[in-house]
Amino acid sequence: MWVKPHPDFSPEKPLFLCILANTETAKIPNISAAGKSPKLTDYTPAADAELVETGNAISINEPAMTPSGAPSPAVITRASMLLTEIPCLFINAGLRIRPKIPTIDINAQPGGDIRTGKAVADAIDIYNKSKALGKKLSKFSDFVIIGESVPGGTTTAMAVMKALGYDGKVSSSFPENPLDIKNMVVSEGMRNSGISFGSLRNQPLRAVGCIGDPMMAAAAGLVDGLETKTVLAGGTQMVSVLSIIKHLGLKKDVSIATTCYVADDPSANFREMTEILGYKAYAADPGFDNSKFPGLRMYEAGDVKEGVGAGGAMFAAAMMGVSQKEFREKTEEVCGSIFGI
Amino acid sequence: MWVKPHPDFSPEKPLFLCILANTETAKIPNISAAGKSPKLTDYTPAADAELVETGNAISINEPAMTPSGAPSPAVITRASMLLTEIPCLFINAGLRIRPKIPTIDINAQPGGDIRTGKAVADAIDIYNKSKALGKKLSKFSDFVIIGESVPGGTTTAMAVMKALGYDGKVSSSFPENPLDIKNMVVSEGMRNSGISFGSLRNQPLRAVGCIGDPMMAAAAGLVDGLETKTVLAGGTQMVSVLSIIKHLGLKKDVSIATTCYVADDPSANFREMTEILGYKAYAADPGFDNSKFPGLRMYEAGDVKEGVGAGGAMFAAAMMGVSQKEFREKTEEVCGSIFGI
Repeated sequence: MWVKPHPDFSPEKPLFLCILANTETAKIPNISAAGKSPKLTDYTPAADAELVETGNAISINEPAMTPSGAPSPAVITRASMLLTEIPCLFINAGLRIRPKIPTIDINAQPGGDIRTGKAVADAIDIYNKSKALGKKLSKFSDFVIIGESVPGGTTTAMAVMKALGYDGKVSSSFPENPLDIKNMVVSEGMRNSGISFGSLRNQPLRAVGCIGDPMMAAAAGLVDGLETKTVLAGGTQMVSVLSIIKHLGLKKDVSIATTCYVADDPSANFREMTEILGYKAYAADPGFDNSKFPGLRMYEAGDVKEGVGAGGAMFAAAMMGVSQKEFREKTEEVCGSIFGI
Repeated sequence: MWVKPHPDFSPEKPLFLCILANTETAKIPNISAAGKSPKLTDYTPAADAELVETGNAISINEPAMTPSGAPSPAVITRASMLLTEIPCLFINAGLRIRPKIPTIDINAQPGGDIRTGKAVADAIDIYNKSKALGKKLSKFSDFVIIGESVPGGTTTAMAVMKALGYDGKVSSSFPENPLDIKNMVVSEGMRNSGISFGSLRNQPLRAVGCIGDPMMAAAAGLVDGLETKTVLAGGTQMVSVLSIIKHLGLKKDVSIATTCYVADDPSANFREMTEILGYKAYAADPGFDNSKFPGLRMYEAGDVKEGVGAGGAMFAAAMMGVSQKEFREKTEEVCGSIFGI
């Protein structure tokens, strides 16, 4: 099913935000498929933003796809923006490569390798600047969707959830979730920062600082500042943001929307975690099993799954009356013009 | 007089933009008072933005004032933002020092020294990205005010106006306008880029590229993209932007607002130029002659005069019903909390 109808969403001035960040964690071999090679993940957020905005990933020559050939989820987000005309703002929350389109810069540093236990030196600063930004953006919108593009982000998500006391099983952009590597990386980071399971449940921003990523601090800060209805658009990375929000004690109208590929991923526990945390969760199915494009059908086999707010972008489109068929056809049109297929 | 009433301005969703850029031109000795020393002008736009946003110029230790002790015009802009609650977004159009607050980054390079004849390598790129940004921001507003903080910007303004065939006499942040230095610098730039008076009247962006600054390309691009009523907030720097807009043939609802200090500056020809160019011009008088602060009374003697959109910020406050007295008192309050006087 596309998206179940939800009568409590009838935005008048929706706004789509997408938080971009790089981390050194993403460069650990075989941890992320969000880029042709670990080193190229530095370019992925910039290219994603450019692709959503212009239909063209300006900053890279490589096609915007996983090593196996599945297109970036940015094509889904672009389809939604074209269909809904929701304005979209990208936030640079710590990038090595700045996109060649306008972005909101919060003057943050890229994240480190969480194995060092020193992942985000400026977590509190990022949080505070994002909170101020959220407050300001509330003047422009009554409904904000927050996506992300952070390669390697499911590993940091797993780490932070463990620090807060949750066995958050995270998803992966690979069809075969490299959970062994992720577990090893997370354990090393926890060891080197002296964190044990649940030991930072009262210090969520400290968990981000030690073994998280800059996006988490930015997303939580935005939610704190926003005076709107807010939907976190993402899979298990955004579940980890929900856990941070909960442990900060924020009382906000926030829910989460992802793709069916994450929601139904048996290696992850998206639905279970959102229930435990106590937030409403939505999942959107673009019906790619019927797509004429092999790259989109690869999503059905577990490639990519989510990213660049794709799930939330579909959710927003559905709330604004777009049908699953229209959506799939627009996504195919976007793929056709990008990949010439 | 504060500001003459203008019944055609009754904005519902006003938005204040402030374009920030550095140039090497600003570092020519004695050309700009926008910083304690020529080298420190690199910090001025960042500090101005921080001051408007937070009441504190985070990036510099020096007080935010001219060498002679007059406060940055950012205090005026901050007073307006506090009184009107207009949301304010800063645009990084080529900075050496990024502000420690969220800004919109269009991924532009700082400007060069116009004496080389190679001032803005990416003028057309800046224009196009700003146009796209303007289009997007139109979704959030019906009335956009565009200010700037670009040290050394009156010299580049003079240069571009000459290239387009205007004897635009520009103002200065010094009480004694260093017109000799400016003329020498402009002549050298024109010579080195093969430009004569009026020779680029059909190529305004080429004029910016040779002897302008990045702010000009950004401001003109924004005006092109915006589908709103637009007011350029500034003195002779914004007059030069008007000349660019006119020579690009843009048909837009655009006018200009500045302070009485620029409008009545006998060394400049603000009113004459706006008449020649054919745009409506407004001037605001904050009544600083009655201020208890010596630093603000220095404006009456010709220090500072304008910047950070101060004139347009006052204009907007007046349009929204703020009186001259309320405005002056709020500016004094801002000065008091910043300078502890």
